[in-house]
Amino acid sequence: MSSASGYYVGIDIGGTNTEIGLIERDGSVKCLESIKTTGNGFETFFAETCEAITKITNGEKYLGIGIGAPSANPEKGCLDNPINLKWGTVEISKIFNQRFHVPVKLINDANAAALGELRFGRAKDWHSFIHVTLGTGLGSSIIYENKVINGKDGFAGELGHTKISDRHRLCTCGHYGCLETYVSANGIRRTVYELLAARQDESELRSVNYNDLNPKLIAEYAHDGDPIAIKAYNITGQILGDKLADVFALLNPQGVCLSGGMTGAGDVLINPVRDALFSSLLDIHKHDIDLRVSDPDSRIAVLGAASLVMDINQ
Amino acid sequence: MSSASGYYVGIDIGGTNTEIGLIERDGSVKCLESIKTTGNGFETFFAETCEAITKITNGEKYLGIGIGAPSANPEKGCLDNPINLKWGTVEISKIFNQRFHVPVKLINDANAAALGELRFGRAKDWHSFIHVTLGTGLGSSIIYENKVINGKDGFAGELGHTKISDRHRLCTCGHYGCLETYVSANGIRRTVYELLAARQDESELRSVNYNDLNPKLIAEYAHDGDPIAIKAYNITGQILGDKLADVFALLNPQGVCLSGGMTGAGDVLINPVRDALFSSLLDIHKHDIDLRVSDPDSRIAVLGAASLVMDINQ
Repeated sequence: MSSASGYYVGIDIGGTNTEIGLIERDGSVKCLESIKTTGNGFETFFAETCEAITKITNGEKYLGIGIGAPSANPEKGCLDNPINLKWGTVEISKIFNQRFHVPVKLINDANAAALGELRFGRAKDWHSFIHVTLGTGLGSSIIYENKVINGKDGFAGELGHTKISDRHRLCTCGHYGCLETYVSANGIRRTVYELLAARQDESELRSVNYNDLNPKLIAEYAHDGDPIAIKAYNITGQILGDKLADVFALLNPQGVCLSGGMTGAGDVLINPVRDALFSSLLDIHKHDIDLRVSDPDSRIAVLGAASLVMDINQ
Repeated sequence: MSSASGYYVGIDIGGTNTEIGLIERDGSVKCLESIKTTGNGFETFFAETCEAITKITNGEKYLGIGIGAPSANPEKGCLDNPINLKWGTVEISKIFNQRFHVPVKLINDANAAALGELRFGRAKDWHSFIHVTLGTGLGSSIIYENKVINGKDGFAGELGHTKISDRHRLCTCGHYGCLETYVSANGIRRTVYELLAARQDESELRSVNYNDLNPKLIAEYAHDGDPIAIKAYNITGQILGDKLADVFALLNPQGVCLSGGMTGAGDVLINPVRDALFSSLLDIHKHDIDLRVSDPDSRIAVLGAASLVMDINQ
């Protein structure tokens, strides 16, 4: 069969849910299933994923399986003890290959999303860009001339652990002052709490406890005019924009694509990002800032994972 | 003639001096001439460079000319109005090609030095690294998988214009808080002056005026135990190390190579760079920091320029 047509399976393993899609070469999602990732170890996960693949493919021939996952080691085809999954080290490519007898490719979850944007999404007209995912933490990928920059050990793209000027917040990595201590779901609720402690503004957020705080709720309050919520998004956006200006100075990319739940806040986040980025950029970079936001309904990480096996010679 | 042997001309155009070398394929410098860059416009410079080429080649056949220069546009083969030279825009590749009838290649001066280190110098065993030149300003290049990262418009590598936390110093670019306002020959004398203003320490530096201050002099005082000079190098090194840690997080390179006159200060600069870099790095990057210093006598930028024409099919 020519590789110019056919189906591919894309799997996006997230901390909570895993999506499994049957994807056409043009990026159309023919069929999609979702399962819970966590719970009963890798064996249960694997059994449920196999069931989902059988269901979505439904006897249809497909040419490969691409997997995006946390702590993925693409060269070895294994997951290196992903922190949130507690599976230990899993030779996931080999396991899927032995079960389904098609080529299996593995990639880091952040890179899967970036490749999805590059091939089918917001970055279709780019070859070099930065992809930033604002989730519980801050994930990022650098695409340069249509390829992921992996770095010496596959650890490139750790924008979330570059440092910001105010270094008093402790990060999950053990250091102080990492970008993701501000710019992430966890970061913005820390900012809200700091603001509530520092200021006198009345705010509906004073009646929400820390564990219930999340970017969506804060965005709702911001859209209703809550001064603390607005200020929290302002600070978050400004810190991200400042840091992106550094990345522009270093790499001179075509643009930045933001994704993740927090981008649902819209202008209350994006405007301060753009303003800070613009005001810090060198004049030579300034004329054409391109800041895009991912389409949250596009299943871009599933598409990116599937794209891994689209160019293999069958 | 096979391209496996033969001679190449490398030209390193600096703000003050230009070096012209006859280079062998293994990086040996067979002959070297130096002329003043500035003075009487491009015509005079070109005449003197031609004379130097004729002198060093001395009838010997050579296979091409590589040029490293400020404000170089490699694609167009021209210099785009280099600020310190006042030559306007010069189609330098075409001009040299018409005179010498060999292939001519042009590259940015910072990238010429980085390519020299990669092929013949401190980075011979690397494929991906950061090259930082500490001169009047701070120049940098990113080499990834043996190639220069140029970016969309050829403006990548502007590490000197990434921002540091203390944003009160005005940069030549018009922004405040650029790295090179601290980490450069100009930066360190600003730091000395701030320290002299802020502190009460006795210091020989109190008898030196601003215009006479330079990194070499400050290093001499530091080696003699002058507290202000030591502190100034400490601050400079720490700020650079912190910023390099960000670059490591983003790009996970094999290492960093520092060059330029300031590196002559030795440990008084390099130790705080290494300490700050190490303490800010993620644990995954920490096990093998590689920080190297260029050999100041290696004519590395001339070699890097010459290397541009070594792989052309003759």
